[in-house]
Amino acid sequence: MASPAEKAQLLTPAAVQAAYGLIQPYVHRTPLLTCKTLDAIASTPQTPEALVGTSFEGQTPARPKFHFFFKCENLQRIGAFKARGAFHALLRLIEDRGEEEVKRRGVITHSSGNHAQALALAASTLNVPAYIVMPRISTPSKIAGTRSHGAEVIFSGSTSVEREAVVAEIQAQTDAILVPPYDDFNIICGQGTTALELEAQYAEQFGTKTLDAVITPVGGGGLNAGVATYFSDKPQTKVFGAEPSFEGADDCRRGLLAGKRVEAVSTLTIGDGLRTPVGLLNWEIISNKKKVEGVFAVTEEQIKAAMRLVLERMKVFVEPSAVVGLAVCLFDEEFRRLVEQEGGAKGWDVAVVFSGGNTTVEAIGKLFG
Amino acid sequence: MASPAEKAQLLTPAAVQAAYGLIQPYVHRTPLLTCKTLDAIASTPQTPEALVGTSFEGQTPARPKFHFFFKCENLQRIGAFKARGAFHALLRLIEDRGEEEVKRRGVITHSSGNHAQALALAASTLNVPAYIVMPRISTPSKIAGTRSHGAEVIFSGSTSVEREAVVAEIQAQTDAILVPPYDDFNIICGQGTTALELEAQYAEQFGTKTLDAVITPVGGGGLNAGVATYFSDKPQTKVFGAEPSFEGADDCRRGLLAGKRVEAVSTLTIGDGLRTPVGLLNWEIISNKKKVEGVFAVTEEQIKAAMRLVLERMKVFVEPSAVVGLAVCLFDEEFRRLVEQEGGAKGWDVAVVFSGGNTTVEAIGKLFG
Repeated sequence: MASPAEKAQLLTPAAVQAAYGLIQPYVHRTPLLTCKTLDAIASTPQTPEALVGTSFEGQTPARPKFHFFFKCENLQRIGAFKARGAFHALLRLIEDRGEEEVKRRGVITHSSGNHAQALALAASTLNVPAYIVMPRISTPSKIAGTRSHGAEVIFSGSTSVEREAVVAEIQAQTDAILVPPYDDFNIICGQGTTALELEAQYAEQFGTKTLDAVITPVGGGGLNAGVATYFSDKPQTKVFGAEPSFEGADDCRRGLLAGKRVEAVSTLTIGDGLRTPVGLLNWEIISNKKKVEGVFAVTEEQIKAAMRLVLERMKVFVEPSAVVGLAVCLFDEEFRRLVEQEGGAKGWDVAVVFSGGNTTVEAIGKLFG
Repeated sequence: MASPAEKAQLLTPAAVQAAYGLIQPYVHRTPLLTCKTLDAIASTPQTPEALVGTSFEGQTPARPKFHFFFKCENLQRIGAFKARGAFHALLRLIEDRGEEEVKRRGVITHSSGNHAQALALAASTLNVPAYIVMPRISTPSKIAGTRSHGAEVIFSGSTSVEREAVVAEIQAQTDAILVPPYDDFNIICGQGTTALELEAQYAEQFGTKTLDAVITPVGGGGLNAGVATYFSDKPQTKVFGAEPSFEGADDCRRGLLAGKRVEAVSTLTIGDGLRTPVGLLNWEIISNKKKVEGVFAVTEEQIKAAMRLVLERMKVFVEPSAVVGLAVCLFDEEFRRLVEQEGGAKGWDVAVVFSGGNTTVEAIGKLFG
């Protein structure tokens, strides 16, 4: 079996392009939105008072200029970019092993969230049986969402060990094929189609003008690695990652500082899609400075402030995980300084990927009530 | 001065068309969105149990088929359709009285909500001084929003009498010209451009196919009267109104039943944009059966259920007032029976106007927490 480093060699823009050819009939071309209000807010320097108590305390606030392009994967099927990877992984399985085998064996995964629903949708669309192992404590709406696509939901405990034990048990019974949530070549290529699409949408508006940067959330890292793969031969567009810092959820950022991937994370950040450590293959991509320029982390309060702006001012419904990239643009002085220095008076055109919108009014009530 | 009945005669599709010519440079062409999930939910019969305790208890639930087209005025400037009427009224004032006079005297209105911000925006854009009388108890975000457009905010008590007394006082000092929030010829024509735009957007998708119905919220009635005016020479497209029923907020529906406009309302419905009685001129239009086919009312719980669906499933951020039309489509068996009978197997193409999106995460927390 190829090592992560060897597999990473094969992750090319052409592989993402090929993925897009396969999944296009099954996924939405989600809108790329602009918002002058958010441009203006992000282009206003923070007050010195706002930096008190942060690592930037005492610095002169940066004066960056932002033009945002929001890639709304909250409007993707099942409400998150995960539909791209799930369709691609399943279509490749069918291509590689034949329809008969995949339909006979079925597919299995463990996920408490968006990947569960995404694989359930892809499987029901392609008439493949799906077994989804979900922690007993998953939110009822996500369990219902997964079942509504006809998948069989099997409950497990919450830890990785408990989940994987149940997966192994079901696999022993059914011979179902595992479709991992993020640390997988085909999943990464699928998520990378987000980048291909947003670049095309930007070009439709601006012709040959260059997009300066793209920033995405980093949880398991599939989305960020996919986007970085797509832009890997376009060095004029820099790719960044964003994580919550709460309880060490910024494993990728910390790993980059230490020069070594952090293997385990235990956090209850409100960015519930970003609680996992970055995967092995994704780490190969994201830790490659030629592919990902940097990963930044934001606090829970900064995530909430960004979420409030997107809901109340943009009128777009997003989940907390979706806005960590915007929060970096609004609040991280290191990033803002970079945009000031490199973008100058013209500023930077920054694509911000809103990764999903699967939250509830009750959850918003708890966050802001 | 012309009576409401005489003025109503002059409210024609051509007047709405003319308004559009004036305001087009100043307002957004908001998107007309579709949502298969909401189509499917609305096209599923309610359970007999869901009708228990309502006036439809014991009836066989209707089997209507809906194809929705959501006109997203929550994405309009200042977050509500009110920007259309305010720009139109002010542009007409300047046309009628001359720029010099309007700039010297300024404009004034009283509003706790979206009309305040809309007039403030229009006035600042056209360099006209604006005085906005707002009840002291208005939400801080709305006061801040109004001030952010450079308007002078003057506080008053909450009742109409108290508000109007303050308006008279400021007018005595400044000679400012009153721009009423809804019961006004130019305001109605401005709001009616919503209909013109959505019809054009529907035609872009479907050519000569006919839109079967449009449903809008009814508060003061400017939006509904404007939309009904625009469609008044297109009888194949029926116009409907929707109101909350809480504490008598359904004054228009009750007035239609009694054959006489209800003049006063005192309600604290969660549809806070719909707490006013329908205006005199608007009543002339809405009570004309040739222009408005019917007005339906929904409960607070039905508004909340519709709002939850729009936020969680459509991922679009709306205020409670915005979804009363959708709530009628989802829950009112009389309306649903009509769609079943007239739409048959093909169903009805229904445009639902989402009137605004000016709410806060705290307010959502209170509603659903």
